[in-house]
Amino acid sequence: MAAGKYLLYSFLSITTAFALFFAWLHLPSPPLNAAELFDCAAYSPWCTSKSQPTTLDDQNPTRRHDHASDIPHHPLDPLTVQEITQVRSILSSHPLFRSSPFSIHSLVVEEPQKSLVLEWQTGDPLPPRKASVVARVDGKSHVLTVDLTSANVAILRTGPHSGYPTMTAEEMYTATWVPMKSERFNQTILDRGIALSDVSCLPISTGWFGATEENRRLIKVQCYSMKDTANFYMRPIEGLTVLVDLDAQQVIEISDKGKNIPIPKAANTDYRYSAQPPNKVMKLLNPISIEQPKGPSFSVEDEHLVKWANWEFHLKPDPRAGMVISRAKARDPDTGILRDVIYKGFTSELFVPYMDPSDAWYFKTYMDAGEYGFGLQAMSLDPLNDCPRNAYYMDGVFAAVDGKPYVRRNMICLFERYAGDIGWRHAESPITGLDITEVRPKVTLVARMAASVANYDYIVDWEFQTDGLIRIKVGLSGILMVKGTSYENTNQFAGQDLYGTLLSENVIGVIHDHFVTFYLDMDIDGSDNSFVKVNLQRQMTSRGESPRKSYLKAVKKVAKTEKEAQIKLKLYDPSEFHIVNPSVKTRVGNPVGYKVVPAATAASLLDLDDPPQRRGAFTNNQIWVTPYNRSEEWAGGQFVYQSHGEDTLQTWSDRDRGIENRDIVVWYTLGFHHVPCQEDFPIMPTVSASFDLKPVNFFESNPILRFPPNTIEDLPVCKAAASA
Amino acid sequence: MAAGKYLLYSFLSITTAFALFFAWLHLPSPPLNAAELFDCAAYSPWCTSKSQPTTLDDQNPTRRHDHASDIPHHPLDPLTVQEITQVRSILSSHPLFRSSPFSIHSLVVEEPQKSLVLEWQTGDPLPPRKASVVARVDGKSHVLTVDLTSANVAILRTGPHSGYPTMTAEEMYTATWVPMKSERFNQTILDRGIALSDVSCLPISTGWFGATEENRRLIKVQCYSMKDTANFYMRPIEGLTVLVDLDAQQVIEISDKGKNIPIPKAANTDYRYSAQPPNKVMKLLNPISIEQPKGPSFSVEDEHLVKWANWEFHLKPDPRAGMVISRAKARDPDTGILRDVIYKGFTSELFVPYMDPSDAWYFKTYMDAGEYGFGLQAMSLDPLNDCPRNAYYMDGVFAAVDGKPYVRRNMICLFERYAGDIGWRHAESPITGLDITEVRPKVTLVARMAASVANYDYIVDWEFQTDGLIRIKVGLSGILMVKGTSYENTNQFAGQDLYGTLLSENVIGVIHDHFVTFYLDMDIDGSDNSFVKVNLQRQMTSRGESPRKSYLKAVKKVAKTEKEAQIKLKLYDPSEFHIVNPSVKTRVGNPVGYKVVPAATAASLLDLDDPPQRRGAFTNNQIWVTPYNRSEEWAGGQFVYQSHGEDTLQTWSDRDRGIENRDIVVWYTLGFHHVPCQEDFPIMPTVSASFDLKPVNFFESNPILRFPPNTIEDLPVCKAAASA
Repeated sequence: MAAGKYLLYSFLSITTAFALFFAWLHLPSPPLNAAELFDCAAYSPWCTSKSQPTTLDDQNPTRRHDHASDIPHHPLDPLTVQEITQVRSILSSHPLFRSSPFSIHSLVVEEPQKSLVLEWQTGDPLPPRKASVVARVDGKSHVLTVDLTSANVAILRTGPHSGYPTMTAEEMYTATWVPMKSERFNQTILDRGIALSDVSCLPISTGWFGATEENRRLIKVQCYSMKDTANFYMRPIEGLTVLVDLDAQQVIEISDKGKNIPIPKAANTDYRYSAQPPNKVMKLLNPISIEQPKGPSFSVEDEHLVKWANWEFHLKPDPRAGMVISRAKARDPDTGILRDVIYKGFTSELFVPYMDPSDAWYFKTYMDAGEYGFGLQAMSLDPLNDCPRNAYYMDGVFAAVDGKPYVRRNMICLFERYAGDIGWRHAESPITGLDITEVRPKVTLVARMAASVANYDYIVDWEFQTDGLIRIKVGLSGILMVKGTSYENTNQFAGQDLYGTLLSENVIGVIHDHFVTFYLDMDIDGSDNSFVKVNLQRQMTSRGESPRKSYLKAVKKVAKTEKEAQIKLKLYDPSEFHIVNPSVKTRVGNPVGYKVVPAATAASLLDLDDPPQRRGAFTNNQIWVTPYNRSEEWAGGQFVYQSHGEDTLQTWSDRDRGIENRDIVVWYTLGFHHVPCQEDFPIMPTVSASFDLKPVNFFESNPILRFPPNTIEDLPVCKAAASA
Repeated sequence: MAAGKYLLYSFLSITTAFALFFAWLHLPSPPLNAAELFDCAAYSPWCTSKSQPTTLDDQNPTRRHDHASDIPHHPLDPLTVQEITQVRSILSSHPLFRSSPFSIHSLVVEEPQKSLVLEWQTGDPLPPRKASVVARVDGKSHVLTVDLTSANVAILRTGPHSGYPTMTAEEMYTATWVPMKSERFNQTILDRGIALSDVSCLPISTGWFGATEENRRLIKVQCYSMKDTANFYMRPIEGLTVLVDLDAQQVIEISDKGKNIPIPKAANTDYRYSAQPPNKVMKLLNPISIEQPKGPSFSVEDEHLVKWANWEFHLKPDPRAGMVISRAKARDPDTGILRDVIYKGFTSELFVPYMDPSDAWYFKTYMDAGEYGFGLQAMSLDPLNDCPRNAYYMDGVFAAVDGKPYVRRNMICLFERYAGDIGWRHAESPITGLDITEVRPKVTLVARMAASVANYDYIVDWEFQTDGLIRIKVGLSGILMVKGTSYENTNQFAGQDLYGTLLSENVIGVIHDHFVTFYLDMDIDGSDNSFVKVNLQRQMTSRGESPRKSYLKAVKKVAKTEKEAQIKLKLYDPSEFHIVNPSVKTRVGNPVGYKVVPAATAASLLDLDDPPQRRGAFTNNQIWVTPYNRSEEWAGGQFVYQSHGEDTLQTWSDRDRGIENRDIVVWYTLGFHHVPCQEDFPIMPTVSASFDLKPVNFFESNPILRFPPNTIEDLPVCKAAASA
């Protein structure tokens, strides 16, 4: 027995020693350093080009766009490659940047004052071009304005702030390799039977919960096994959380609480078409395509100015917001005049709290725009699948951590959408003696981007309709963030709360919410607008007034201050939400307006004092209205990372400023509760929700009355490609 | 002065006499009698054919369908032309019909017992074919069953009932001409300066408000001026309401309270393309089309059995429901087996209360399916505009008032929809070192009909997705029911309640609601199912449990009886609504299910004791669940016309029967509040809302994982038709 024990001990020792030696030989290190991440020759998916900023259009191989020679044409145009290079050059000779290593967290055009933009007309010289820069130097965050003409650098704010700037892609990347520096980390990985070369890690923002997150920039790294699947997200190394100092890129703490939880199997998790068994591929559908034999009806002038049907707007990529729509104007069918609708609209912030209070999960309360950069995470779109044929693709030109420009190819697409829907119709019943069937097909224009914030994919559509309606839609797809468990069947945990759904053996899909908050600077026929709540109230009739006992009455109330416009939606106390220009009336005297039309949504139900909800307080209402203020664009505050929630839409709105007949900004939050189900495994079918901005007495009458119907002569003649 | 008075008197007398004489000469009479209405040679829009029931497919001129030789193939198939003729022949020799004049209000297939249908398989002989007939004879309503094999007629119910059967098209038509029999009516028309030949009238259901509507079948007729426009709806002869006895087709009473209200002008009201000034036509868009060079991927077997991708279902037209989906089954990607999802689904009832308590408006509280026949009012669809290219069109075969069959051509269309949407996607951020972008386009199958209930058009879509989701969508278009007013500008009535919006000079769009209630007999992997409310509740953490104060917890509760499943939706007390089969579990033990996913909707806010709300009590909740009962299909009761609300979903559900692990029916009501705006004039851009039936642990995993992406080789090669 003693000999047996000795042998066993020797065997285990030798095995462990061998394993550690093997691990040492194969110790993974980042294949790239941060600078190489943006060397586009080495790393094409992240950026198309840095040294040779040229893009190619898959749809039209003759259209090559060389960004090296881009020049700005519009006051709102993003910084060009040349301009970013120029800003970098100005900064590098500034005392702040000469002395210490620095990192650029944001480098974007600083839009001119709104009044200047409103005055500007095509052909006018551009207002002075400026860059807004967020940089960290020596552990401090700085907000700067760089004037490209004068080369002047103005320092607007310098830390300490509550919160930190958006992470750079480079530091996210580097952070995921930090745990490998820890012997303890490597040991626990090996103890679980995972080869270190199979480990893939994710950088997870920590949120802010108190003292732990004070005075240092942190990230939590969690890891997965990549063995036998590209879908490592389904193979969590559960309960292992490495707290990393983001500035020092050093391990602070390792929490290791899931040693008994098996890594879920790889089988049936890979979603790539190339990984499917050929005999199981489901080719059930014949080819189908949106075809436009005479080409699309829109044009994009000077790279960013979109003109389509009765719409015109400025469209640009942004590293934080993703996609920015500006100066959206609709042409009046009666006068032919372009009329202001939106000055600026974009995704301001996201808030994605997971509903598991345990050690490895409680902090997962993402704010994807301010923490990760919603635009930075928007990868190149896949032509013919992300967007239909005849789409136009727009590239993003961003600055890397070192201030050098790089190109994100095909980041936004623009396409005309025909889905077989009906714009308007009427058929007469022959009871009236008229033989009429008049129908108009609905064709719309969609601007789309898709951000992949690690596992999740957010598809954002701005859809413009000819009838003046704008639909803003968010689609959720991608891969769930799942939790490992020892359970393999629901009969093993009757009554116990898993915080989610058992999706497959050893895999729990944890319940979570998604909130996406939109900034909507509405300018209805000019900047001074009012917000009107049109409340539908039950009115009882008086005795003898009518055989009816009740009816609904529309009671209008103009919101005078911000608190009157903090709106929680109620099915049984319904309202319409109008943004009107009280100074501009229709022929019969109605103020011109647009309304915010909510659709399916979800509200945050977290406790108002819960730290994540304080930071995500912009989700406390579905609608807010604030007076226009240049500094209030990001609903969670400018520096969201580890913020305390001191600078949110809630705090601004609680100042209760006047909003009547003023330049106002409307905020709308789209929400989703997500209780995962097995169909979400191993990748989720898209779930979408939307809201509309709809003209309400904006036009004198139906603006698409005079659009023609389809006739067979208009449609293309097609044949299958194989027979072409 | 006396002479002056005498002259004036003489002049007025002579003028009046002349006017009356002129009116007599031009007294309009119906161009058709009721029998002629369905003479298809004379009246093509209403029916395509009665004597020669043949249809032609616009899309495929070689496909001609001769209904004369149709035979039934499936137990649920509608009655064929031959069968309707046979039923008529059986009835005409029955004592009930031999003695007196009769009218057929409904003549449809009586579906066999559910158990027989479930047992039946392709190739089996059909269960005995029966017709369900609603007929009025001698002022009494009868519900009969006619056995086509035995020629037996069983009388199931004979009046008096609360309520009357659905009106026939013929009596609606005749009723609109009844006012012309009245000299007083003609006089008031002339007094308003309208030629009698310009008058067009609508048959408006009276609802039920008490003694007035007791013991006689009534209709209210209101009229419009057709002068100078096809859109007479915009030219109401306001305040003039003629109460007509529907059986006697006689005027009972005339209410004439709008003499001082001008008829709104005709200018800018015509919506027909042919009526637009050619120089104002807006051709802003290039042609666009959904193209399928290898044809659509669906097939329709035996006229009604639809097979597409992983779906199979039975589709048929119905005079009351419009469109009926039966036996919808989804093919399991793992086993290849077709699995039950829906036994039967259709539009059960509509409720459209207007919000104006005054004399000419209070009674407008339509129940379009039971009063007018939602299918009877579904006119022929307009190919290329109502439905895209490659659509398949299905005809309705219905019985006229005399029991003769007629064909409604192209009443339903079926098409594949590709809108540039994304089925699922994921792109990897290069942070993880993987170069992956996998995207699948979303293609769906839509079954569509459009009912034109007088002015309004309802577009109903059942959209089947490959991922198992079914979206049921209702679009509202057509023309507002408007009210005449003396006002021409909002500055003339400050503060006064118009019950709506001034849309144009002298035109008010009256506020109203639309509710559309769907019957959904869900059979998830078999008939015995349970309804589970998955309530998301805020859970506070205990001290020291977590840095988080709160999270959301899913609390499941099985509804044991009907009252536990009377659901009012609440944004701040959210639930998921699952229909599960407790006896069938997934591999990891979740019960298989589907969930009802509400989206934008509106609730009825009328007083519960208001007579219209008592009749429309099925809108008192958004969701109800009842045990399956053959006699409970119509949410407002079988005989809705002038009903008292004694036989509604509310009364059935209040019996509080058991619904756990039983054959259950789910009811969902989609609601719209409509505060009209000027853009709705003179015809409304479509407004849509929908809800989903979504698999939830029905499949083991994402059922579209193995669908291929689009590649350029799959897509068609097209050219403009002009250059073809």
